[in-house]
Amino acid sequence: MPWQAVPMANSRSGDSMTERIVRVLDTFTSERTMQTATEIARRTGLPSSTTHRIVGELIEQGLLERDDENRVRLGMRLWELALRGSSALRLRQAALPHMERVQVSIREHTQLAVLEHGEALFLERLSHPDAGANITRIAGRLPLHASSSGLVLLAFADPELRERVLTGPLRAVSSETVTDAHALRALLTSIRRRGYVAAPGSIEAVSTGVAVPVRDHGEVVAALSVVLPRETPPQPAVEALLSAAEGIQRDLRNSH
Amino acid sequence: MPWQAVPMANSRSGDSMTERIVRVLDTFTSERTMQTATEIARRTGLPSSTTHRIVGELIEQGLLERDDENRVRLGMRLWELALRGSSALRLRQAALPHMERVQVSIREHTQLAVLEHGEALFLERLSHPDAGANITRIAGRLPLHASSSGLVLLAFADPELRERVLTGPLRAVSSETVTDAHALRALLTSIRRRGYVAAPGSIEAVSTGVAVPVRDHGEVVAALSVVLPRETPPQPAVEALLSAAEGIQRDLRNSH
Repeated sequence: MPWQAVPMANSRSGDSMTERIVRVLDTFTSERTMQTATEIARRTGLPSSTTHRIVGELIEQGLLERDDENRVRLGMRLWELALRGSSALRLRQAALPHMERVQVSIREHTQLAVLEHGEALFLERLSHPDAGANITRIAGRLPLHASSSGLVLLAFADPELRERVLTGPLRAVSSETVTDAHALRALLTSIRRRGYVAAPGSIEAVSTGVAVPVRDHGEVVAALSVVLPRETPPQPAVEALLSAAEGIQRDLRNSH
Repeated sequence: MPWQAVPMANSRSGDSMTERIVRVLDTFTSERTMQTATEIARRTGLPSSTTHRIVGELIEQGLLERDDENRVRLGMRLWELALRGSSALRLRQAALPHMERVQVSIREHTQLAVLEHGEALFLERLSHPDAGANITRIAGRLPLHASSSGLVLLAFADPELRERVLTGPLRAVSSETVTDAHALRALLTSIRRRGYVAAPGSIEAVSTGVAVPVRDHGEVVAALSVVLPRETPPQPAVEALLSAAEGIQRDLRNSH
């Protein structure tokens, strides 16, 4: 196999073929769903010929799809490969009926997030048509120390990750984000003790995020949250979330 | 760049690096969410050393995650890359509130499918806890000629694809699957005329699939369906689906 005799598709800079593919896919966002290969080359910083070849391979495999104007978008085949055997799907399927119950009583935004590479990654979001402001998107991310979901995930994370976040820079997303390490440490302790957080204004001044942990076999695997208008008292949401989290935990246990 | 001077990670058999990655990801299913690299090598037919290297690269990029017992599973990062900018997500987000409304009235299974490479690929499924049998899964597929969703997608597909299916082998999924090309052609014509299908027993003897088309700017982009117990009369479901499809079309129009 001549292919194995050469370095595995590594460029001089040491990035693997997989890394290049990820760089290409990573240029697609919820605001940027269609691009030309030339735009992708510019955004990835990969050479144009390399990008065109990768895009060609991705189209051939159905991971990208080309439209009539020679722009490409993410393919249904990529979606299928990513979801079919994923734990994200299992978690989200267990959570969805319980999230719907939260929606029926709270009628704002209900969200499910996991810890992914030092950030809160949102797996699901249900929104009432009349609900208030909410920055989060499905497959979007928020910083751990700023979002209510992130705070819950951080409170129950590996102590090592927690220390890394506490000793690293704590960027203010809003004027009310907790950016003082001492205050953040105390907040995380109180989240572990109470089992929930209500974080008014930490992302947007007009909203309060309320979040609780979701456990799978005792381990916190996700945060379930609602986003409320700032003036709404959080306690009913806390109750609804705690009861939903219990339901999800029960269903996760039974799905094993 | 020495990397560009060699054939782009192609083996003697001509498969690209992207194709190998797809083969690895394709071994994960809803029943098989954890595997060792050795099992993946066996299932892909790729050489063991190649497979271990690809798996290593995929882990490095977060597309796979390794557990304590050295088994790997699909990573949250793959999920994020596949969903963030996908039209599947846009369609599913537009559809979800309307699917929930169908669920409230029909209380069985409500599903959204798209045409993908000659099959019906299911993007979403909501199921009532007491609902009857249903073979479909999110990110699962069914043949076009056998499932109610597939029949709708086929009825409104490219004539070329339709002819290919009609002249190809029509496998019976159940004893009631329409496998006669003339009968199938007549059924597709009637679906286009009526705007829906009710397909009793075509997948499972105990169920009736009912499906309607969902249009985006006039073009059919998805099928919305419910699965009912065989004895349930389909008409209320047809009404609920047609009204939901109209709502989705309105929301898709407004989301552009």
